[in-house]
Amino acid sequence: MAGSTIILGANRYGKAEVRVVRITRDTARHEIEDLAITSQLRGDFTAAHVDGDNAHVVATDTQKNTIYAFARDGIGAPEDFLLRLGAHFVDDFDWVSGGRWAAEKYTWNRIQVDGSGHDHSFVRGGTEIRTAVVAIENGSPTVIAGLTDLAVLKSTGSEFTGFPRDEYTTLQETTDRILATSVTARWRYNVLGLDYDALFADVRRILLEAFALTHSLALQQSLFQMGKRVLEAHPEVDEIKFSMPNLHHFLVDLTPFGRDNPGEVFFASDRPYGLIEAAVTRDDATDAGTAWDGIAGFC
Amino acid sequence: MAGSTIILGANRYGKAEVRVVRITRDTARHEIEDLAITSQLRGDFTAAHVDGDNAHVVATDTQKNTIYAFARDGIGAPEDFLLRLGAHFVDDFDWVSGGRWAAEKYTWNRIQVDGSGHDHSFVRGGTEIRTAVVAIENGSPTVIAGLTDLAVLKSTGSEFTGFPRDEYTTLQETTDRILATSVTARWRYNVLGLDYDALFADVRRILLEAFALTHSLALQQSLFQMGKRVLEAHPEVDEIKFSMPNLHHFLVDLTPFGRDNPGEVFFASDRPYGLIEAAVTRDDATDAGTAWDGIAGFC
Amino acid sequence: MAGSTIILGANRYGKAEVRVVRITRDTARHEIEDLAITSQLRGDFTAAHVDGDNAHVVATDTQKNTIYAFARDGIGAPEDFLLRLGAHFVDDFDWVSGGRWAAEKYTWNRIQVDGSGHDHSFVRGGTEIRTAVVAIENGSPTVIAGLTDLAVLKSTGSEFTGFPRDEYTTLQETTDRILATSVTARWRYNVLGLDYDALFADVRRILLEAFALTHSLALQQSLFQMGKRVLEAHPEVDEIKFSMPNLHHFLVDLTPFGRDNPGEVFFASDRPYGLIEAAVTRDDATDAGTAWDGIAGFC
Amino acid sequence: MAGSTIILGANRYGKAEVRVVRITRDTARHEIEDLAITSQLRGDFTAAHVDGDNAHVVATDTQKNTIYAFARDGIGAPEDFLLRLGAHFVDDFDWVSGGRWAAEKYTWNRIQVDGSGHDHSFVRGGTEIRTAVVAIENGSPTVIAGLTDLAVLKSTGSEFTGFPRDEYTTLQETTDRILATSVTARWRYNVLGLDYDALFADVRRILLEAFALTHSLALQQSLFQMGKRVLEAHPEVDEIKFSMPNLHHFLVDLTPFGRDNPGEVFFASDRPYGLIEAAVTRDDATDAGTAWDGIAGFC
Repeated sequence: MAGSTIILGANRYGKAEVRVVRITRDTARHEIEDLAITSQLRGDFTAAHVDGDNAHVVATDTQKNTIYAFARDGIGAPEDFLLRLGAHFVDDFDWVSGGRWAAEKYTWNRIQVDGSGHDHSFVRGGTEIRTAVVAIENGSPTVIAGLTDLAVLKSTGSEFTGFPRDEYTTLQETTDRILATSVTARWRYNVLGLDYDALFADVRRILLEAFALTHSLALQQSLFQMGKRVLEAHPEVDEIKFSMPNLHHFLVDLTPFGRDNPGEVFFASDRPYGLIEAAVTRDDATDAGTAWDGIAGFC
Repeated sequence: MAGSTIILGANRYGKAEVRVVRITRDTARHEIEDLAITSQLRGDFTAAHVDGDNAHVVATDTQKNTIYAFARDGIGAPEDFLLRLGAHFVDDFDWVSGGRWAAEKYTWNRIQVDGSGHDHSFVRGGTEIRTAVVAIENGSPTVIAGLTDLAVLKSTGSEFTGFPRDEYTTLQETTDRILATSVTARWRYNVLGLDYDALFADVRRILLEAFALTHSLALQQSLFQMGKRVLEAHPEVDEIKFSMPNLHHFLVDLTPFGRDNPGEVFFASDRPYGLIEAAVTRDDATDAGTAWDGIAGFC
Repeated sequence: MAGSTIILGANRYGKAEVRVVRITRDTARHEIEDLAITSQLRGDFTAAHVDGDNAHVVATDTQKNTIYAFARDGIGAPEDFLLRLGAHFVDDFDWVSGGRWAAEKYTWNRIQVDGSGHDHSFVRGGTEIRTAVVAIENGSPTVIAGLTDLAVLKSTGSEFTGFPRDEYTTLQETTDRILATSVTARWRYNVLGLDYDALFADVRRILLEAFALTHSLALQQSLFQMGKRVLEAHPEVDEIKFSMPNLHHFLVDLTPFGRDNPGEVFFASDRPYGLIEAAVTRDDATDAGTAWDGIAGFC
Repeated sequence: MAGSTIILGANRYGKAEVRVVRITRDTARHEIEDLAITSQLRGDFTAAHVDGDNAHVVATDTQKNTIYAFARDGIGAPEDFLLRLGAHFVDDFDWVSGGRWAAEKYTWNRIQVDGSGHDHSFVRGGTEIRTAVVAIENGSPTVIAGLTDLAVLKSTGSEFTGFPRDEYTTLQETTDRILATSVTARWRYNVLGLDYDALFADVRRILLEAFALTHSLALQQSLFQMGKRVLEAHPEVDEIKFSMPNLHHFLVDLTPFGRDNPGEVFFASDRPYGLIEAAVTRDDATDAGTAWDGIAGFC
């Protein structure tokens, strides 16, 4: 390393977790959109790092302001909103060659009053969060949709047998166990201009159905089936990546207390947990470039 | 204080957050119950504290085992399960005079496959958590039901005007704002032997409806209306207590960017937040004794 | 309950977790104070709840502003700052009879450069947090100091034997185990005008020493010794309350892998955990009134 | 995409967050090591995903057991422990070609009693966590050391000026602000067989000193200086990557309350926050292969 020069490597910067709530109130029946948005720029920022020269540093505060200003003009599908944001920064600043724009979207349902949804009162939906990322590299955008914290559980229809045994193996085989996980999935589209809301709803539906319908010999198998069905149904998806913890539910030994336990009473453990991460992809998938960089979990 | 004697004061101990998942599988259509249960005993435990003499200390591990053993015999409404647990400890150990048994219950819904709920595959429901506490004092139980993390929001129908102004007041009056909170509510029953599941569902319904239907002049007013309606509908409830943060949504000033903002784009702030805590009660409510002790938030 | 009237019960409101960082920069050697402060008022607020009349509702935004304005005049010991805040609200508003003012204080140490502390660069200290509460009831203040998240562990010098055995008991006795907890302690002073910073430091020192020096026959015994030593050393403390989880460290059975395990390798479990809560007090302690109300954990 | 084949892409699996506490008790003066360890394997696992055939699936439970068994033989520097773990799995299972082994290590200090450290009583150290990753690809290991949650703050010596202004820019320039961040850093070694504990301590020292001593014109500049100094001092480090939030401290406007605020009273904001991510590297750095994959934050 003697004589080597120390240089700036890959970098990006911006504003993270800008919380924006937008109410559309054109009529008395309001609509709500609730998101946390992150904007990060890539480009020529060497002077800032090396010399503290900020002439190229679009302030993160400015990025935040831009998010709010653009939200005034409407949000819509998070993917579309991020595409508009990204195009703005890449188009308006010569030295910005790309970046990463990400969103988390939270679900709100109407409060039911006398059997119908209230006009302007809402209650938070499930624990899961919809995610979206737009990565732009050399001016070219890639869209990655996703979801996280989708907790699912099968109370039967899950086995784990036939695994190798070495000197450290004590686990017993089982042909009936609880299978529980919290799905994080991200899928990459191979074209632009899609109906992202409709696609999200359908991919989510497929993921849930595939989890339910797969008689699981391994969580890996459930994962692969979930991905395969998404890709089979949606030619516009080139690959889907999963990070799925195996949230162990241990059958409690009740024999000391004079009771059997035929798969009924379980201890839900926190840690450690299994962690299964894999991509399901097309053999002729388009190149993702650096679009997956920096997405937590599986790269 | 010279000459004073140092003594043990109020105390209780036990096992906290015992995670139990129970599958009822009498038929192919499984049922799931998912709870975290805490058991704490009160009684004569002075020797353990003062002398390290554990002759009275029912091990917290034993309390955990008891929870799992009892779960094998069925759980049902969390309030009923806690009553059975509490009676066991108070009846079986002479020196146990009471205690506190608490549960959090998590919602699971069936995964929809082709329009109907799957037999043994489930997806977590909303962010909210059902809570239950059974406090026993001198052998007499009190039941406190509740919920937490019920996030609700009104996009209009909320004002805040007429408040006093002093030298530190800068807040402007408003006749149209977002009102958002995450409801923690606990209500105390004045009789035993109730249908706790049905009551929970109905109280939850009333809380949501009251939040939606109240044109709010203050979060305090919404809170009182929510409590009042519960007590009006349910004579078996003697009091209900709330801890409700005022989760501020600030209208973003978009004028520097050439845009108006007629109640459409908001910044959802994390901290600080308003915090409104109050009880709504009957004038002839039964005495709660120490039943509320140690319940986080409002006492 | 028929014919009962529904009324407002106990209540308080205010602004929670106002994050204030104060830099004292009278010289080049800066001092930093970093706190989260909560202000809640008690008094006559019935009209706000029942009628939505805010004439008495000192806005929570005003309470926040007051905190920042008072911080400009200096913070000092959190207890002193809260006493000044509380006196202001009780003195300036006729209908405010009391309230609760609370603080969390975070530790910052100077960054060491060439062996000495830097003038204006700091690094966060330990995980523990100093807490303070001033409760005012009918104009009379009570001061409760404390700390939370003080994680301590003994690798030996801890036993658990002699506990009763029933049909649900499987735990083995042990004369050598790891004892680990995360101490939350709160202590109430019986006079005002104390040197709260010095007292805090000394009580913390005593708690740590007592934990270390007690050969523990039960976590309850350690707790009592910790409290007793504080009260013996400090006549200005009337009572001290603890909430101490027993954070289980289970010895791993390594015999299947041909290894012994003489107290060396442990699994640190998350949940469930033991939970020991108790007060140590003087037999002639002054009455606390409602000062402990609403402090999470032990009441 | 018509006619494309759906295949398994990159994958790995294992056990995450195995909590292991090891006490070395050869003498009365105990030593404690406290870690959370994750083990994930890469290799030929296609059959498990596609067919549910587990013949290659070394159970995650077996990976956990291996961690505990190896811990009995001593832990030492986390990097060394992970290297031993990784070599075991790659050597013992033909179809395992690599994987990722990661550790978090928590600091414990001796409790001070009468001015000296107690033999077997400990108190948790700072909020920061030491991290280590060993990535093995085709049998060849890469070691990445790191730390996370190292919270630092400068109360002066930080400016932000000269940034571009567009129609969405409202931020004012400042020549004196608080600069606060929570450092996550990861650095990659270019040789094996190092004294990882000594290196960690020295890199941490350099990071803190560089943060303190850099008069900062941008957080990017501080970051680069921190990385540059590490690489200058340590030829065995080829690159270092940072993820550093800019934790905003806003000067509170106290003029409405008749007070000035010359850099003394700040509101510490939670969200949004700036997010600066960059690598500092040698121009002749060795190729990292996939070693950085799946490390959250910057890739």
